[in-house]
Amino acid sequence: MKVKCTVSYDGTHFKGYQVQPGQRTVQTEIESALARMHKQDELIPIVASGRTDSGVHAKGQVIHFDTPLSIPMERWPFALNSLLPDDIRVLKAEEVDDSFHARFGVVSKEYRYKVSTETHQNVFTRQYACHYPYRLNIEKMREAAEHLIGTHDFTSFCAANTEVQDKVRVIYALEWKNVSDGLEMRVRGNGFLYNMVRIIAGTLLEIGSGKFHPEEIKAMLAARNREAAGKTAPSHGLYLWEVFYDN
Amino acid sequence: MKVKCTVSYDGTHFKGYQVQPGQRTVQTEIESALARMHKQDELIPIVASGRTDSGVHAKGQVIHFDTPLSIPMERWPFALNSLLPDDIRVLKAEEVDDSFHARFGVVSKEYRYKVSTETHQNVFTRQYACHYPYRLNIEKMREAAEHLIGTHDFTSFCAANTEVQDKVRVIYALEWKNVSDGLEMRVRGNGFLYNMVRIIAGTLLEIGSGKFHPEEIKAMLAARNREAAGKTAPSHGLYLWEVFYDN
Repeated sequence: MKVKCTVSYDGTHFKGYQVQPGQRTVQTEIESALARMHKQDELIPIVASGRTDSGVHAKGQVIHFDTPLSIPMERWPFALNSLLPDDIRVLKAEEVDDSFHARFGVVSKEYRYKVSTETHQNVFTRQYACHYPYRLNIEKMREAAEHLIGTHDFTSFCAANTEVQDKVRVIYALEWKNVSDGLEMRVRGNGFLYNMVRIIAGTLLEIGSGKFHPEEIKAMLAARNREAAGKTAPSHGLYLWEVFYDN
Repeated sequence: MKVKCTVSYDGTHFKGYQVQPGQRTVQTEIESALARMHKQDELIPIVASGRTDSGVHAKGQVIHFDTPLSIPMERWPFALNSLLPDDIRVLKAEEVDDSFHARFGVVSKEYRYKVSTETHQNVFTRQYACHYPYRLNIEKMREAAEHLIGTHDFTSFCAANTEVQDKVRVIYALEWKNVSDGLEMRVRGNGFLYNMVRIIAGTLLEIGSGKFHPEEIKAMLAARNREAAGKTAPSHGLYLWEVFYDN
């Protein structure tokens, strides 16, 4: 049987999602919990929608795995959560078709980037939002964001050392919302390059604080050069929010 | 010069507010930061509105201290925050009259108690709200809360080993609000006994989940016996929210 799980994690104390020898990662924790559930020594391999970097959070990461166990679907989250550390929680489990694949089946993903603009850092969100205590012009940020929506070569918004050849991606929606202690960026696209959301967030924040003009984002895109865009915003403001599949 | 500061802290990694030898406490951290600011070896003694227990958070704790330094008031928070660990932040500093006293001058205090009612614990609030995934009847909790408002002997809602003689306190307001991921209790009173807010929260949660009838709270009060009331809710849901003084 193939099981799809929706998983949330606090990225603060993980060296990212993907297994790395000697490091605490989300994948290792879930695979060991599954091994214990299956009462076997070998890890149960899981496939995720994609990796998340060290410090990045997930509200709705999606994974799949195969299992011989016949546990009712509504019991899977409780069973796994009782074996997982408290910074990972399985929120939902669904039986899926053999054809489902958590990575290859992704149609689009939503990321969110949280920014706290309070003068002094809020101690309760210090690990969950980027502290940016500067006056921000949200209208300029929205104006610049409009230029990123659509199909573009995002080379300038991708970490320079990335090996992927095709850097064309589609952004379906990109908006900035006012929230209680600051701002939140919500971006949905068909796929994201390495550091792409963090570079978009960092660049739009620099536009909001007046370092760049909103129109300059067009030249940044056209340059196809990482050095043309703004800073990479820190990882702890970033959330993999939701992963979408064809039903 | 006498300085009043409003201070916020994340209680997760503190053994409470008050100095205890060999333990990490909020008071010790602030007193050492002040000593470094004053370039002296002895700690600068501070006086707080009252203690908070291990694990309890503060949104607006108030402290005062005396200083020979003449730093503009708006610079004090920045100067202190640069020397404090990131789970304590000074939000505001004001010069006050010699007659001001952070503890003896308290007119009333507001505490809040946060409850997350999601089925599976929210990883992002696991240290900042009590996870109580049960169906709660908020109307019954509000009905019971009404009986606690006013002047009462709160012996039943005070940790049994407390030495204070006079256990009469006044509750001015006590309300339960629906918030995004659960409920929040807001209580304001002239003073609170040891564990009083947590016992009130725990008892009202048990009323909400049907263990007790709202009317039973009257007998609990009348019993003047800790065993008559409900459970003490865990510390990590509790916040010292605001301290009020006469202007």
